[in-house]
Amino acid sequence: MSSPGNVPVKVVVDRRVKIAEVVLRCLVCGLGVLVAALVGTDTQVKEIFSIEKKAKFTDMKSLLFLVVTNGIVAGYSLIQGIRCVVSMIKGRVLFNKALAWAIFSCDQVMAYVTLAALAAATQSAMLAEEGQVEMQWLKVCGLYGSFCTQIGEGIVAALVVSLTTITISSLSAFNLFRLYGGHKRIKNCGGW
Amino acid sequence: MSSPGNVPVKVVVDRRVKIAEVVLRCLVCGLGVLVAALVGTDTQVKEIFSIEKKAKFTDMKSLLFLVVTNGIVAGYSLIQGIRCVVSMIKGRVLFNKALAWAIFSCDQVMAYVTLAALAAATQSAMLAEEGQVEMQWLKVCGLYGSFCTQIGEGIVAALVVSLTTITISSLSAFNLFRLYGGHKRIKNCGGW
Repeated sequence: MSSPGNVPVKVVVDRRVKIAEVVLRCLVCGLGVLVAALVGTDTQVKEIFSIEKKAKFTDMKSLLFLVVTNGIVAGYSLIQGIRCVVSMIKGRVLFNKALAWAIFSCDQVMAYVTLAALAAATQSAMLAEEGQVEMQWLKVCGLYGSFCTQIGEGIVAALVVSLTTITISSLSAFNLFRLYGGHKRIKNCGGW
Repeated sequence: MSSPGNVPVKVVVDRRVKIAEVVLRCLVCGLGVLVAALVGTDTQVKEIFSIEKKAKFTDMKSLLFLVVTNGIVAGYSLIQGIRCVVSMIKGRVLFNKALAWAIFSCDQVMAYVTLAALAAATQSAMLAEEGQVEMQWLKVCGLYGSFCTQIGEGIVAALVVSLTTITISSLSAFNLFRLYGGHKRIKNCGGW
């Protein structure tokens, strides 16, 4: 298996993919925690006609969904990041199809779920910021300004999380599907 | 390139992938048009205190986004479906990396955009169906019942469109990344 002209190319590509994967998974882990913290701790109290009203993230299901999904994706990325580092230290390359399928499937789910959560939260945030006159839904960000600002920061961080998980899902697709290219032919090389 | 034991397996896999791709792209095309038609033509007029009020899909930006994205994905799927059928008739197999990258990228964008549109529209529909007491956003589906039912049908069809585009994006990832597996080694088989 040591073809002098080609193995170095494959090793360099493998190493770059692994390093990129570790960096991206660490980024998702850190930003996922940041999103959960920013949105999950966000509250604002207002006094309206001597009645105290409190805005919190659980008032909107989409924000709760955003916090939960970003918390899960952060934990998952931590575990996957550790797996990547261990396999780099041990010098292992992913050639196990079952494991590659499992990682690919989980990464795909994470990418789609984080994007869905982001889209739903962004839609709610836009309604809160602009209102919807036709539905008689009023702007609430005029009242809860700092609450909305912090949610906005969380959504920007969630956008980066989402784009990064999408990139990771492409990387794991690469790691999986290249196992299906030309390998069967190699076995019969002697017969060519 | 004619290794008797392996080529038939590859040919069978290629044919099945191609057929699956054509069927899925036709499904997306048909359902994409259905979503655009269901949501885009949905209106309901109600008389409230002798004032006529009309609900239409453009009242919510997320529904407009759903119609536009499903219209685009239907047109795109039609073009890609035709390309698949032509390449099946001509017996061509996708070995052009640039084309495979272009198809993969477009399919990824379609999968993520249709999912984002679906998530945003579902969030709006849930708000219309259930309201949001904390924000003083009232249920509007009590008033516009048949309008909301038709939007719901559109959202179910959009869910199938979204799941199908996700499957197609995995197929095109397979078509692209298998081009990166073992090919470089094959060139040097004679030297092994």
